[in-house]
Amino acid sequence: MSRGRLRDLGFGIGRLRPGPLNAITDVDGVRVGHVTLIEDGPAIVRTGVTAIHPLETPYWQDNVFAGVHCLNGFGDVTGGYWIRESGLLTSPILLGSTFSLGVLRDTMLAHPMRAGVRARFHQPLCGETNDALLNDGLAQALKPEHVVAALDAARDGPVAEGGVGGGTGMVCHEFKGGIGTSSRQVSVQGQAYTVGVLAQTNYGRRSDLRVDGVPVGLEIGYDAAPSLRRRDEGSIIMVLATDAPLLPPQCARLARRAALGLGRVGGLGGNSSGDLMVAFSTGNRVPALPGAVVGGLHMLPNDQMDPLIHAAVEASEEAIVNSMVAAETMQGKEGVVHALPHDLLCAAMVRHGRARA
Amino acid sequence: MSRGRLRDLGFGIGRLRPGPLNAITDVDGVRVGHVTLIEDGPAIVRTGVTAIHPLETPYWQDNVFAGVHCLNGFGDVTGGYWIRESGLLTSPILLGSTFSLGVLRDTMLAHPMRAGVRARFHQPLCGETNDALLNDGLAQALKPEHVVAALDAARDGPVAEGGVGGGTGMVCHEFKGGIGTSSRQVSVQGQAYTVGVLAQTNYGRRSDLRVDGVPVGLEIGYDAAPSLRRRDEGSIIMVLATDAPLLPPQCARLARRAALGLGRVGGLGGNSSGDLMVAFSTGNRVPALPGAVVGGLHMLPNDQMDPLIHAAVEASEEAIVNSMVAAETMQGKEGVVHALPHDLLCAAMVRHGRARA
Amino acid sequence: MSRGRLRDLGFGIGRLRPGPLNAITDVDGVRVGHVTLIEDGPAIVRTGVTAIHPLETPYWQDNVFAGVHCLNGFGDVTGGYWIRESGLLTSPILLGSTFSLGVLRDTMLAHPMRAGVRARFHQPLCGETNDALLNDGLAQALKPEHVVAALDAARDGPVAEGGVGGGTGMVCHEFKGGIGTSSRQVSVQGQAYTVGVLAQTNYGRRSDLRVDGVPVGLEIGYDAAPSLRRRDEGSIIMVLATDAPLLPPQCARLARRAALGLGRVGGLGGNSSGDLMVAFSTGNRVPALPGAVVGGLHMLPNDQMDPLIHAAVEASEEAIVNSMVAAETMQGKEGVVHALPHDLLCAAMVRHGRARA
Amino acid sequence: MSRGRLRDLGFGIGRLRPGPLNAITDVDGVRVGHVTLIEDGPAIVRTGVTAIHPLETPYWQDNVFAGVHCLNGFGDVTGGYWIRESGLLTSPILLGSTFSLGVLRDTMLAHPMRAGVRARFHQPLCGETNDALLNDGLAQALKPEHVVAALDAARDGPVAEGGVGGGTGMVCHEFKGGIGTSSRQVSVQGQAYTVGVLAQTNYGRRSDLRVDGVPVGLEIGYDAAPSLRRRDEGSIIMVLATDAPLLPPQCARLARRAALGLGRVGGLGGNSSGDLMVAFSTGNRVPALPGAVVGGLHMLPNDQMDPLIHAAVEASEEAIVNSMVAAETMQGKEGVVHALPHDLLCAAMVRHGRARA
Repeated sequence: MSRGRLRDLGFGIGRLRPGPLNAITDVDGVRVGHVTLIEDGPAIVRTGVTAIHPLETPYWQDNVFAGVHCLNGFGDVTGGYWIRESGLLTSPILLGSTFSLGVLRDTMLAHPMRAGVRARFHQPLCGETNDALLNDGLAQALKPEHVVAALDAARDGPVAEGGVGGGTGMVCHEFKGGIGTSSRQVSVQGQAYTVGVLAQTNYGRRSDLRVDGVPVGLEIGYDAAPSLRRRDEGSIIMVLATDAPLLPPQCARLARRAALGLGRVGGLGGNSSGDLMVAFSTGNRVPALPGAVVGGLHMLPNDQMDPLIHAAVEASEEAIVNSMVAAETMQGKEGVVHALPHDLLCAAMVRHGRARA
Repeated sequence: MSRGRLRDLGFGIGRLRPGPLNAITDVDGVRVGHVTLIEDGPAIVRTGVTAIHPLETPYWQDNVFAGVHCLNGFGDVTGGYWIRESGLLTSPILLGSTFSLGVLRDTMLAHPMRAGVRARFHQPLCGETNDALLNDGLAQALKPEHVVAALDAARDGPVAEGGVGGGTGMVCHEFKGGIGTSSRQVSVQGQAYTVGVLAQTNYGRRSDLRVDGVPVGLEIGYDAAPSLRRRDEGSIIMVLATDAPLLPPQCARLARRAALGLGRVGGLGGNSSGDLMVAFSTGNRVPALPGAVVGGLHMLPNDQMDPLIHAAVEASEEAIVNSMVAAETMQGKEGVVHALPHDLLCAAMVRHGRARA
Repeated sequence: MSRGRLRDLGFGIGRLRPGPLNAITDVDGVRVGHVTLIEDGPAIVRTGVTAIHPLETPYWQDNVFAGVHCLNGFGDVTGGYWIRESGLLTSPILLGSTFSLGVLRDTMLAHPMRAGVRARFHQPLCGETNDALLNDGLAQALKPEHVVAALDAARDGPVAEGGVGGGTGMVCHEFKGGIGTSSRQVSVQGQAYTVGVLAQTNYGRRSDLRVDGVPVGLEIGYDAAPSLRRRDEGSIIMVLATDAPLLPPQCARLARRAALGLGRVGGLGGNSSGDLMVAFSTGNRVPALPGAVVGGLHMLPNDQMDPLIHAAVEASEEAIVNSMVAAETMQGKEGVVHALPHDLLCAAMVRHGRARA
Repeated sequence: MSRGRLRDLGFGIGRLRPGPLNAITDVDGVRVGHVTLIEDGPAIVRTGVTAIHPLETPYWQDNVFAGVHCLNGFGDVTGGYWIRESGLLTSPILLGSTFSLGVLRDTMLAHPMRAGVRARFHQPLCGETNDALLNDGLAQALKPEHVVAALDAARDGPVAEGGVGGGTGMVCHEFKGGIGTSSRQVSVQGQAYTVGVLAQTNYGRRSDLRVDGVPVGLEIGYDAAPSLRRRDEGSIIMVLATDAPLLPPQCARLARRAALGLGRVGGLGGNSSGDLMVAFSTGNRVPALPGAVVGGLHMLPNDQMDPLIHAAVEASEEAIVNSMVAAETMQGKEGVVHALPHDLLCAAMVRHGRARA
């Protein structure tokens, strides 16, 4: 159901090379699963959940270092206190609707207990953006079994984008948004590293939308694709993954750079936006259960981080754009949210001197 | 069901004078409501929810300034990002079980919509501590209607303490804990102000317990009151209220001082503790709905804050102690958690030179 | 000695209207003073200090609300802890060389005592970036009297830009940088507000430089203006002022948005960059000396902040660009740092579809 | 010149065992050096500087992980942004007078350059408390050569306490304070670790002073030792060291616990106090110069940190008390600051049931 990606249209963002999938799953071990709920009665349901496993092993066995950033706080991410405290991501990441954040969190908390595995209490990392424009949130269509299904559905390989999973009912720059992803590969002292980003996009005004610096939002205007509501509402959750061996403060550095990528697309961190970023590194594994001193950890020196910083900004920018390029027009609770018109986007890019690949 | 309070035993904490109720409700407008669930079958249920309204007016009309602090992050408080961002508490505060944090949060989010009132989206402030020792959390006994009932039950006046509301299944310093409260009155330049604290206590080792500096935990030992589990687990949530006109950073200052009171009782912020504090001031009101510039705000100068800081530390300390003095022995899921023995407590105090009032 | 400003070349940034001076001094009461030291012997000195008074009244009488943000921390700003604690800016802001931060800070601390005024201890807000490429920092040319002279020289009206004051020896995107400023005017519910930015720019790679989204750094290349050193080093300090009545957390919100403006110019927050932002509001005044409750404070509702957020991003972007447009080629300690070539800049803008005003 | 230590008087703090020196230098490699300036003319000088090297190797070769905490921000520590950003302490720690913080910082910044060693720019970690009561700060007696002398004087072995080094002119709980230190040894899974604390104490009211929970300040009163000024002014800087292999977030955890120790002594974090804590771990070494991926790092699991947390609280408490027990009565700029009377301290302890060893 995706309409393709920015690079399918002949354009890219920045100067670094994407990974083979140009997706967060280019980072080895990262797995993504979506559950999408579309119902037209009795309630208009346009919602879902996206699960991201940081590793191919269960989270009750291995954890990874992580860091968080909040550009603007009208939104919520559960479990952020523990990441700040411990530097560890101790659960998969779940993204969904603001109406269902509690369902995501409570289900995730009880998950190992219900699965009968030996696990200590963990702090579920769950994020939300508000799909009230297209989804009847009070219908509470999302149930614990959907959360478990998304966890179970997670796979490596290509990632579905647009109006799927947690992004089902989301709106970005007044176009249909949702889930988008991208990646970059960099070389540091002869060693290849990947940075991948997955974003659930639900923010922004059309007039601020830029693609690779081109003011496409202003160029496209409202004639071909009217806007259901002209306000800067909503939020964005951005998840960054890398296989570079980063310690927790270094993960937080990457998370902060996602905000720069967001700013380049035209995100301003509006008042009623919950702009939250989490970054994790699979370059070290920390046993989840209490035990002996963990040895053999690695750390990329801070002085070598600039390529990763660059990669984080570029991949963040392209992940957001991909969410809009992929998403299809959707009819929902309050009306129609139009897809970003590919032809007008391309025309604007060319008009502003961007060469088509 | 409460066994009384520390001052009923003839002892107090510190040098400042408590308010008439020695409770958070000494701050005008603050209202507290509990719902307690005790069931012995099919599941062993020892849980509940405590609601704190900061004002006598609805939260969808008036908000108050607030600030948060995290001493240790193995726990969660939803809505903290928005307080940090805006300096405003935009919802009542709900305290409950770690198994039900999501129920609290989702119910609170949808509350104004379901009530049919005109309200913007808000960020529910909900906190949790882990009642797994006494409560079968997987039974998910707490339902949205219990949350609404606690919100509706909130009243000014005396506050029930011990194993009630969100504190029902909690354990503190290996004694039965739960909800405790205290307050202090101070005079700043001739103006009287009140600082009130309500704590949901669920942390600590017995050997670290101190009351007014007296090592009562070591003195009481384990003979008269065995411990179900000798580990520093669990968490504490502390809510501070004041009628002094504090701006958001000043509220955060008070929140940080609650950690000092906790430290004086013997809280060390253990690894698996979620020690989260929120402070709000009723000294200014901010309309909840968008509107014109808010005028007529007041601010106590920072230079005048020392008495409030002092009050916050003392009231925090006494609120925690009150939770244990009040709580009765409880039989639950994993066994019996004993009440703090009043006679041994008093004997230890006297032995260490504390005069009985 | 300035070569003019971006708008003199026929280009602007964004959609909002600048103030009459397009400078931080468009905010009533804000005053800026520079002292510039250029010496060619015995040491090569290219340094100075820039002073910013937030109000037309002395800082020992009136303070303003403020907030800080750190995008990347390889740099320092003294006094930031107090702003976070109190929400107040209690001193003028001084910007200078990394070699002289201590001179700035110690001089500012003792300033009221030496001036014989009755004042409480304050926390000097001083920032630095590293001018080692052009300036012989070990010569320690900057003395306390230069700091006092900059404080005394501060005036309203137009602000000198480029290689002056604290920006004398700075390098930005491998072009000569230094001091740049810009402002925006917005209307909120019929009330006009101004946001002004002053930046001391000393960061970035040429290949990342963008002006209004146009990749001018790549377009200009190195032929016409060789680079003394091709690395992302150095830092940026950004000061934001507004007359909108913002409380401390709201000031911090503006400070965080300056990072978005920086990101749009091509700042990535490189590892060895100290990217620190401070924002203050002159919309309320708080007496500096201890006293009674401060009344009559105003607060722009958070819901009305979006135009200010937009203004902060645009003015930040243009302030940085202005620093490079204004700065002249400078010969210094390690060689020549070239000015941004105006003709090539303009050609690149036109080539990418930007209309010349 | 020291009058001894708390344990010389027959009392200790807490339940854990101190290291052989009961000092921060019990952590292998940590070295401390003091320079003390006492002059009675022309100006009354009571000041100095204390230097702490985290390792026996030069800071331009090896760095250690570190974290910071601010309990109250009326004070300054330079270099804190970089610790938060990188998790690394890249310089020795210097403690001194608020009047000379800039001298400390500028001298430290230029130190490797002046020493002719190859080193990248670093961020000096320098802290201050205000010695204006006893020292004529405007005399600026402390010069760069004193800072270098303290760096060079640093040794392992016993640490001089009381009115020495940076603590020379400091006042604590209205008694003479200054430098104090203490340590604890703990065993984690059969491995011994040490936590050491060094504090520069300059805060607090006498009435709040507690030693091991005994309200000795109230008991001692003012008859035997009048107070020069009865206000809660001043600040405290606390430095924590451990050889346990802690990552940066874990260092920050320890830093936060120092505040709990401070609270137990009677520190409330008064408004005009700069209460700043830094903790570092020598359990891992990170090369200071750019290079390859750092391997072989170790991490104590968070689940094993409780003994270290306990040790940090106890050692912090005792370090503060030691600063007062050691310090001698001092005549200075504004009069006499009396030493803590040992006999009255001991009598109060005994009266409150503390057994004398």
